[in-house]
Amino acid sequence: MNVIYLDNAATTRTDPEVVEAMLPWLTDEFGSPSTLYTLGSQAKQALETTRESLGDLVGAGANEIFFTSGATESNNWAIKGVADALQSKGRHIITSQAEHHSILMPCKYLEKRGWEVTYLPVDSDGAIDPVELESAIRDDTVLVTIAHANHEIGTIQPVTDISAVTRDRGVALHINAAQTVGHLPVDIDALGCDLLSLSAHKFYGPKGAGALYIRRGTRLTPLIHGGSQEKKRRAGTQNVPAIAGMGKAARMARKNLPAEVDRLTSLRDYTIESIENNMEDVRLNGHRAERLPNNVNFCIEGIEGESIMLSLSYPTGSDEKPVFISTGSACVSGSLEPSHILLAIGVPAELAHGSVRLSLAKDNTREDIDYALRVLFKVTDRLRSMSPVYKRTANEGASKSATANCDECEAAG
Amino acid sequence: MNVIYLDNAATTRTDPEVVEAMLPWLTDEFGSPSTLYTLGSQAKQALETTRESLGDLVGAGANEIFFTSGATESNNWAIKGVADALQSKGRHIITSQAEHHSILMPCKYLEKRGWEVTYLPVDSDGAIDPVELESAIRDDTVLVTIAHANHEIGTIQPVTDISAVTRDRGVALHINAAQTVGHLPVDIDALGCDLLSLSAHKFYGPKGAGALYIRRGTRLTPLIHGGSQEKKRRAGTQNVPAIAGMGKAARMARKNLPAEVDRLTSLRDYTIESIENNMEDVRLNGHRAERLPNNVNFCIEGIEGESIMLSLSYPTGSDEKPVFISTGSACVSGSLEPSHILLAIGVPAELAHGSVRLSLAKDNTREDIDYALRVLFKVTDRLRSMSPVYKRTANEGASKSATANCDECEAAG
Repeated sequence: MNVIYLDNAATTRTDPEVVEAMLPWLTDEFGSPSTLYTLGSQAKQALETTRESLGDLVGAGANEIFFTSGATESNNWAIKGVADALQSKGRHIITSQAEHHSILMPCKYLEKRGWEVTYLPVDSDGAIDPVELESAIRDDTVLVTIAHANHEIGTIQPVTDISAVTRDRGVALHINAAQTVGHLPVDIDALGCDLLSLSAHKFYGPKGAGALYIRRGTRLTPLIHGGSQEKKRRAGTQNVPAIAGMGKAARMARKNLPAEVDRLTSLRDYTIESIENNMEDVRLNGHRAERLPNNVNFCIEGIEGESIMLSLSYPTGSDEKPVFISTGSACVSGSLEPSHILLAIGVPAELAHGSVRLSLAKDNTREDIDYALRVLFKVTDRLRSMSPVYKRTANEGASKSATANCDECEAAG
Repeated sequence: MNVIYLDNAATTRTDPEVVEAMLPWLTDEFGSPSTLYTLGSQAKQALETTRESLGDLVGAGANEIFFTSGATESNNWAIKGVADALQSKGRHIITSQAEHHSILMPCKYLEKRGWEVTYLPVDSDGAIDPVELESAIRDDTVLVTIAHANHEIGTIQPVTDISAVTRDRGVALHINAAQTVGHLPVDIDALGCDLLSLSAHKFYGPKGAGALYIRRGTRLTPLIHGGSQEKKRRAGTQNVPAIAGMGKAARMARKNLPAEVDRLTSLRDYTIESIENNMEDVRLNGHRAERLPNNVNFCIEGIEGESIMLSLSYPTGSDEKPVFISTGSACVSGSLEPSHILLAIGVPAELAHGSVRLSLAKDNTREDIDYALRVLFKVTDRLRSMSPVYKRTANEGASKSATANCDECEAAG
């Protein structure tokens, strides 16, 4: 495909081998896994194979993996399910101000229904402070829910320190690992969590499949009631083709992960350094080191992230490739609100509008990044030159990139 | 495929054209429909095309169609969503004793949380009486939820009469149409419902995609909160490939439906008559005429439905094809409980254990049915001859089929 796709935190290209693994279940092997005859038992076996593969990937038992339609459903289930099951114990939940909407919105909903939610502040990198968490825990706290890594700015939370607190205080811990499973080593026991959400399409699997890890003995009410699928915890005919694809993606991730973490970390740091060396008035969002290997997020002063994103995706020259990136919170694009995550880490609202996220993946090469950066620098220069707010001096040569290029020309000349 | 698949009420074979329609969205067109750049807007357009196609199929506006992971989620959403949104008006829901588990279990859950649920009795065919419904409606009734047609015994409910009552009394009506959409004409306005659930894999679409029709102005709380997908009513990245496939399935259904209704009705009646003419001690379950065109359901005295089902699926002769049918309630198979639906229509528990359902579909021919019936008669004879409970005379020639064959032999001889 003649495009450069750098929005892999939103969704990834389904790996061709994953599609291959799905096809039998879309054709001859179409049976329902709930039925007892062969056509059904083969489908059931496909589910169990994926359960094993996901268990292996995150260090869990296959019998602790429950299939859902994706991480948003998993997050809703974890939060509302624990809230419902433990309401006689208490109605207090703790999360952070920088969570994904699929965490915050269920919490807001519960607030309207009589629960109390503490939204912990985050530091300027987006991390929560385990000491603050400990102070926030009350006798009626039933759940702490925190992302493993932030989907927008990439900061990895100190989950081990967080779980030390929740375990000590006997409070269930839910980790939204949609951004990390398949991209970073994830080990349930090392993390110390009781519930963990994941989504196949974030790690080269298909859309429509996710899972919730539920530690044995964790109490939570089903979100979707009905038939006896998923040991009566999540009703509805399982999406066998997508789940089979998710299993393949999990096995590939497990195999490729160590090398990919190194490669992407290096590509990420190259991208960050290139932007910092070639552009003025930019700010890296998120922690520089405790960061997803594939996340680059900057605020670019004086222009709208949306303008950058759209300019990159509709190249003007006929020989230019579209470059796809995101701005603000990709899951609520279309919204003109500045990202609540950037506001939570203290970015001023004006600057928050100028954020761009480049999220890398296995298909992205150094050449892709160089191409994308060249276009990004050019587009930024053009937009800043037209900006009514960007500082006047900048209008006369908005980015170091222009300068750098000129310097190079001079040096070469 | 060298099998005879007669369990189409559980799930259907995904049509090859549907798989074809899904593939672009599993390969090059993998973008998230929430993003604004081209790769995303193409995916968004795929969603809108399906919304139109489903709207056309059921006589609804595209803007009243909301995507879910399937009918079980749609049913949960409809019931819990209305219950939550209207709880200040009242906490009473009406359904029937013969509903699918994805209706009954959400109701049971709500009962534990302070709602009251009336489970209307059904007549010996499985139909509810609109007069009884009217008597059951109270000032605090907020929802009536009834299946368009029963998934197990095929009886079509008098929905028009039901909606006359609910409209008169100002109560929202939800119809679970998982068994009818794509198989019978479904028209929202003719039905007079406010909410309607459907599932793609029941009409040759893929697993993992369904929808809830929500009449404009109907109040219900989201089941899955988060991002702003589906006009903020159902969060989570949409399952684009499956939804594109569902659209294709909807367009095919709309085109093929009139001819298929006639063909399947005739094949169904042929199957029913063959069983009644060739087997003794059988009972047709469900209404003879007001019935799904593809549903055949019998109780076969003296033997377990599960034994029949398994015997048919593992043929003993090397030249025999497996025949896949279901027994009891296909969605909870593995359970040894007799079907609650058969109990609701007055079938004694012992007899209810001997139920078999043959659910037909577009791929099934008259030859398939003849083959399946031959094997069914043979298996029934054998099982009855070994049955410790089936009447002694039957052991000496359990079915009319044997007798009929002998008579034919004699007549021919």
